[in-house]
Amino acid sequence: MEGPDLGAFSFGLDDLAEAFASLSMFPIFEIAHYILMCQAVRSDSGGLTLSRKHPLANWVCCMLMCSAGGFISSLLLGLPLIGPLSKTPNVLLASAIWYVVFYAPFDAFHKVVTFPPILMLVYCVKELHRSHTILGGVLKARKVYSSGIIVQICIGIVHGAGSGFMLNFQRLVRGKWSPETNQILHPTVVLKECLISAILFTTGVLPINQDQLLLLTGIVMVIVKVTLTLTNVSDPFKPIENVLCMPIFGKVEAMAAEKKKKE
Amino acid sequence: MEGPDLGAFSFGLDDLAEAFASLSMFPIFEIAHYILMCQAVRSDSGGLTLSRKHPLANWVCCMLMCSAGGFISSLLLGLPLIGPLSKTPNVLLASAIWYVVFYAPFDAFHKVVTFPPILMLVYCVKELHRSHTILGGVLKARKVYSSGIIVQICIGIVHGAGSGFMLNFQRLVRGKWSPETNQILHPTVVLKECLISAILFTTGVLPINQDQLLLLTGIVMVIVKVTLTLTNVSDPFKPIENVLCMPIFGKVEAMAAEKKKKE
Amino acid sequence: MEGPDLGAFSFGLDDLAEAFASLSMFPIFEIAHYILMCQAVRSDSGGLTLSRKHPLANWVCCMLMCSAGGFISSLLLGLPLIGPLSKTPNVLLASAIWYVVFYAPFDAFHKVVTFPPILMLVYCVKELHRSHTILGGVLKARKVYSSGIIVQICIGIVHGAGSGFMLNFQRLVRGKWSPETNQILHPTVVLKECLISAILFTTGVLPINQDQLLLLTGIVMVIVKVTLTLTNVSDPFKPIENVLCMPIFGKVEAMAAEKKKKE
Repeated sequence: MEGPDLGAFSFGLDDLAEAFASLSMFPIFEIAHYILMCQAVRSDSGGLTLSRKHPLANWVCCMLMCSAGGFISSLLLGLPLIGPLSKTPNVLLASAIWYVVFYAPFDAFHKVVTFPPILMLVYCVKELHRSHTILGGVLKARKVYSSGIIVQICIGIVHGAGSGFMLNFQRLVRGKWSPETNQILHPTVVLKECLISAILFTTGVLPINQDQLLLLTGIVMVIVKVTLTLTNVSDPFKPIENVLCMPIFGKVEAMAAEKKKKE
Repeated sequence: MEGPDLGAFSFGLDDLAEAFASLSMFPIFEIAHYILMCQAVRSDSGGLTLSRKHPLANWVCCMLMCSAGGFISSLLLGLPLIGPLSKTPNVLLASAIWYVVFYAPFDAFHKVVTFPPILMLVYCVKELHRSHTILGGVLKARKVYSSGIIVQICIGIVHGAGSGFMLNFQRLVRGKWSPETNQILHPTVVLKECLISAILFTTGVLPINQDQLLLLTGIVMVIVKVTLTLTNVSDPFKPIENVLCMPIFGKVEAMAAEKKKKE
Repeated sequence: MEGPDLGAFSFGLDDLAEAFASLSMFPIFEIAHYILMCQAVRSDSGGLTLSRKHPLANWVCCMLMCSAGGFISSLLLGLPLIGPLSKTPNVLLASAIWYVVFYAPFDAFHKVVTFPPILMLVYCVKELHRSHTILGGVLKARKVYSSGIIVQICIGIVHGAGSGFMLNFQRLVRGKWSPETNQILHPTVVLKECLISAILFTTGVLPINQDQLLLLTGIVMVIVKVTLTLTNVSDPFKPIENVLCMPIFGKVEAMAAEKKKKE
C-alpha cells in the first residue's frame, strides 16, 4: 500500500487524480457493481433454483447485496435503514441488471458477462467503484462524527465491503442460515484492503492529497484484483500478518498450555 | 382487486367511505388485532408450554407480534425502534388481551374467541384494521420520503403484514430458530394483498379517491378472508401468478438445463 | 429491595449518596466493567482458541460486550448504533483491557484478576457501575420519551443488563449460534435486579430521592453479588416468584390438561 516514488506520481498524475475524484459513479460504475452483486447471488449455492421458484426472494436478495454498504451504514449511523431504496433510479437500474442476469433470453447476458476478458473489465471497474465508496463512507461518517476516527474507519469499511457483511442476511432471506462463518471471523482480502484504505482516508497520514489517495487506492485495488484473479496467490497480506501477529498475539500458546494444565 | 362497476360503487358508498376512513382504530379494531396476534403466539408450537414456564418471554413475544408493523417500520424509517412501546394505553390494552388469552379462569376467553362465528367476526374486524394500517404505513413513509414510491410501498406492506415478518424473531425470543422459511420466500395471501393495496395507495392509479380505495381494500380483504376460511381455496393469486411468471421468468428451465451440461 | 429503616439510612448517608451520584465512571468503574466483559468472552467456550486464531473477531466481540448497553439502547432509541464507538477514550481503554486480558506476557493480568479477593473487588465495583448505568439508561430514555414509563424501564434494563442481551450476537460474530436460550427466556438474577431498579428509578415510588435510591441500589446489588458468589444460593427471587406466579399464571395446568383432551 506504500506509494512508490510519490514525487513522480503526484507530478504526472495530478489532473488524472482530480478527474477520477469527480467521476460520477452513476451509471457505468454502478452497473459493474450491480452485475457482480447479482452474479454473486446467482453463483451462491441454490441461486438458480431460487431465481425460478422464488423470484421475489431473489429480487430482495439482489437488492440487499446491491445496496449492502448503504443499508448497513444507514443502520450504524442512525439514518433510515430503507434510505437506499429511496433512490429510485438506482433501484430501477439494479432491478434491470437483476432481470437480465437471471432471466435474459438464452441466458445471453450471463454468458457475455462471464466471458473472461469482459469479466476482468467489470472487476476493474468495480474496484475503482469500491475506492470511491470507501471515501464516500468516510465522508458520510465524518458529517455525523467529525472527530470519531474509529467510526469513520468502520463506516468506510462497511461501504467498501458491505456485501461481505450482508451475505449471511441475504442467505437468511433465501431460507439458508450459515452462522458458522462471517467476514469478521474470516477477513477477506477485500476487507483488509478496505481497512487500510479507510485508515488512510481517515487519518491522512500519507503525504498526498485526498484525490491522489483516491486514485492510488483505486489503482492498487485494481492491481490486487487482477493479480489475485490471474495467479493463485490467495492472500497477499498473509506474510505481513504472520510476521506481525507473532509478537503481538504470540503469548497465547502459553495460555493454551496453561489451560491444559488446569483441566 | 378490480373495483367492480366503480360508478355505482362510488355513488352509493361515498358517505360510508368517509365514515370508514375517519373511524378510530382504538380500541375496538386494535382489540381484534391483539386477540389474533396473541392467539397466533398461543397456537404456535410450544405456545402453551411457554406461557406456563416463561411468562416474561411469552409477554415479550406477544408485544412483538402486536406491534410488529410499528417496530419494523420504525427500524426501516430510522425512527426509535422502541416507539410502539411508548403508546402506554396500547401496550396496557395489549397486555390485558395477552393475559386473558393465556391465563383467564377456565380458559374462558380462549373458548369464546375460538367459537367459529365469533372468530369469523374477529377476522373481519382485523381485515378492516389491516386496510387502515396499510394506508397508515404509506402515509408515514410519505412524510419521510415524499417521492420514494418504492419506500412507500415497502412500509405499507410492512404495516399490513408486519406479524409475518416478525414471526421468525418472535420465535427466537422463545428459543426457537426457524431460518428455513420466511414471508418473503413463501409469500402469504396476506402479503400479496398488502403488496397490491400498497401499490394502489401509493400510485393512486384507480379512478377513486383515497377514502373509497380504503373502503374497497377493506371490503375485498374481508371477502378474501371469509372465502379462504370457509372454502378450501388456498391462494386466489396462484392462477394469475402462474400465467404471469411463465413469460417473465420462464427462461430459467433453459438455465437449469445448461447448468447440468456444465456439471 | 425494601430500604431497611429509611429514616436512619437517609440521615447518615445523605452526603455519601450525593458523592456517589456525582462519581465519574471513567476510568475506574469502566475498567472493572471492561475487565469482566473481556473475561466473559474469554471464558465462553472457544474463547482462547478464538483469541489466537481470530484476533479481529475477538476484538469485535469484546467491544460489542463492553458497550452492549450503549449499542442496544441506541438501536432502540433511534440513535446512531455506532455511537458508543465514537467515544474514542473509552474504546482505547477497552482495547487496552482486551489486550492485557488475552495477550499479556505470562498471562499475568488474567492471573491477577482471577485471584479471588481481587475478583471480588472487581465484582463489587462493577455492581456499583451497574447501578449508575441503569439510572443513566432511564434518564437517556426520559429525554426522548418523557412520559413513556415502559420505554424508560426497558432502556434502564438494557443499560444495566446489556451484555446478557448481546451474548447471542457476540457468539454469532465468533461463528457460534445459540438460539435455544436468551436472557428473556431464562432471566438472570442481574436482569431481575435491573428490572426492579429500573421500575424504582422510573416511577419514584420509594420515599427517598434519586441519589439515595442510586446508593441503595448499588449497595443492594453489591450485597446480592457477594452473597451469590460466596454461597450456593442460585436465585434469591425464586421464592417470591413461586408465590406470585401461582395465582397469576396458575390456570395453565388446566389449559395443558385441556390441550391433551383435544389431542
